[in-house]
Amino acid sequence: MEQNSIMEQIVNFPSKQVKYVFETRATEFLRQFESSDIVFITDSNVALFHGEHFKNKKHIILPAGESSKSLQTIERVASELIKLNTTRKSLLIGVGGGVVTDITGLVASMYMRGITFGFIPTTLLGMVDAAIGGKNGVNLGLHKNVLGTFLQPDFLLFDTDFLNSLPQVEWANGFAEVIKYACIFDSELFDELAYHNRSDYQQNSALLGLLISRCVAWKNQTVIEDERESGIRKLLNFGHTSAHAIENLYNIPHGQAVAIGMVIAATLSENVAGLTSDATVHLKKTLQQYDLPVSYPFDVPKAMELLKMDKKRNNNEIDFIILNQIGHASVQPLPFSIIEKTLMLCAQ
Amino acid sequence: MEQNSIMEQIVNFPSKQVKYVFETRATEFLRQFESSDIVFITDSNVALFHGEHFKNKKHIILPAGESSKSLQTIERVASELIKLNTTRKSLLIGVGGGVVTDITGLVASMYMRGITFGFIPTTLLGMVDAAIGGKNGVNLGLHKNVLGTFLQPDFLLFDTDFLNSLPQVEWANGFAEVIKYACIFDSELFDELAYHNRSDYQQNSALLGLLISRCVAWKNQTVIEDERESGIRKLLNFGHTSAHAIENLYNIPHGQAVAIGMVIAATLSENVAGLTSDATVHLKKTLQQYDLPVSYPFDVPKAMELLKMDKKRNNNEIDFIILNQIGHASVQPLPFSIIEKTLMLCAQ
Repeated sequence: MEQNSIMEQIVNFPSKQVKYVFETRATEFLRQFESSDIVFITDSNVALFHGEHFKNKKHIILPAGESSKSLQTIERVASELIKLNTTRKSLLIGVGGGVVTDITGLVASMYMRGITFGFIPTTLLGMVDAAIGGKNGVNLGLHKNVLGTFLQPDFLLFDTDFLNSLPQVEWANGFAEVIKYACIFDSELFDELAYHNRSDYQQNSALLGLLISRCVAWKNQTVIEDERESGIRKLLNFGHTSAHAIENLYNIPHGQAVAIGMVIAATLSENVAGLTSDATVHLKKTLQQYDLPVSYPFDVPKAMELLKMDKKRNNNEIDFIILNQIGHASVQPLPFSIIEKTLMLCAQ
Repeated sequence: MEQNSIMEQIVNFPSKQVKYVFETRATEFLRQFESSDIVFITDSNVALFHGEHFKNKKHIILPAGESSKSLQTIERVASELIKLNTTRKSLLIGVGGGVVTDITGLVASMYMRGITFGFIPTTLLGMVDAAIGGKNGVNLGLHKNVLGTFLQPDFLLFDTDFLNSLPQVEWANGFAEVIKYACIFDSELFDELAYHNRSDYQQNSALLGLLISRCVAWKNQTVIEDERESGIRKLLNFGHTSAHAIENLYNIPHGQAVAIGMVIAATLSENVAGLTSDATVHLKKTLQQYDLPVSYPFDVPKAMELLKMDKKRNNNEIDFIILNQIGHASVQPLPFSIIEKTLMLCAQ
């Protein structure tokens, strides 16, 4: 990684160089593209609160929410791009949360076999996780992200002004991923998070800015080392394996499902990796400081059925991310039988 | 390119090494994968004539024909792959013509963000052109290949036994692309084709084998030099720009449309690049020896409308492939007005 100025950073992923721009307003940043043919892709929420960015500009608005993550959306967006005379020389910019950046990335990797694109994440979750790393995807029925590609955007702009319009549930969603990085990589960050609570960060933009760049750095470093997720990048799935099953069944927000999933993974880690029960208690308490749930009365047999559909499945086992201690995670193939027992403990 | 043995060749494309296997029967070749989890993708014609390859094997059968080139097919195939428990470690093998290899390549580049795949082309067109080079795509309404990716297969197997069941119109389709290579790159090959006719090749498998490997070599060389089609690979679109418009309007076979398109491009080349009228006459005569049409009464305004939707469009011009002489082509941006005049001459 090279530091070009205080605000710009070039991140060298194995497949591509990506420009990261921090502490800059979108309006200011977008000026450089004034003579380019840009098409913005956003969702109905962002369009409602930040419509000024799209006024008199080519744009496509997706219905907000996970249900837009489908091949039907890809087809609809591609048809609109054709109508907007989008060519191979056009630039797509996704402005929104994880659904918008996933759809933008996948459309851009397929439209005319690939056109240039960039991201302006507008949620905390997008800024610290979803917009980073080049993964995109759509769901097929209950199968999350079963169709997608790996492709890095050309740039990412982090404009924290967008967070001013973020509803509380979206803040909590983002903090679930922040706590995830702390659990996997960074016990100091965990201590910081345990010391503060959500409103501390919401009220202190300097503190929040530092938090975001710390998470971005963890994600970049992981993806640089293992862009195609054959090794260390798998750790980022901590809490996500059971989360995907639970959010499919109950349609609860991703961050809440991840919080519950992290508690499940920690409980499992007590059994298979010697995590102390104190660590699990500490994790639960911290999650609650960020208004995240630590349990949910889900249907265990149905959740097991969905787990068996996971991309990480391999015959009767699944690669599960377990915690050895706060700040250190590892991948362990676990038989479904052991996972089922833990789910029964946690499903209440 | 390295020659490993008489039958196997490793082709080093910029993005990937691909194994090409010649003069080998599919049954023999497939033995090496006996312990792998393979899913075959094929179409209803191939399944009818060569069903023995799929008996007791996991397979997905597409309806034969261009209408299968859609995102709906991608979704259907992906759903079937899930039902067949296809994992990241499975292998997809596309057995068929250009539609089957396009769908297989696109599904493989998206399913779980990419799984391994190989091709067994079963048509002359597939063997000399469609299966080679890593382009895949689906259509969106009248827009050909507007969604797709660039991704090379792991292997290609050329088993000319499949050609025994090929209907005459499919032979003609393949010869259109063979004549295309001769026009662009290889005047000696053009002379050979002018000397022979279709049944000469159909009755002489040695002559046919040499013809196929000569075309494969031209295509490989072009793609090695310019995998992402920013330069010389564009030449392979000779005859294809107007062909795409005509086949969209009249649903005539691809090879026939390409034959007509090559005559249009040659006529245009007389005006803008000094091609002799003798060359155009020579081209027409040769096309007819392979049962290919040299004109068609298409609707010029409608064809122009479709040309304006082409991926190669750039404002009021389109990158057109013109012939300087038989065996030498080049790219020339041409205004739509000049193209329209030539279409009016040729549309009868």
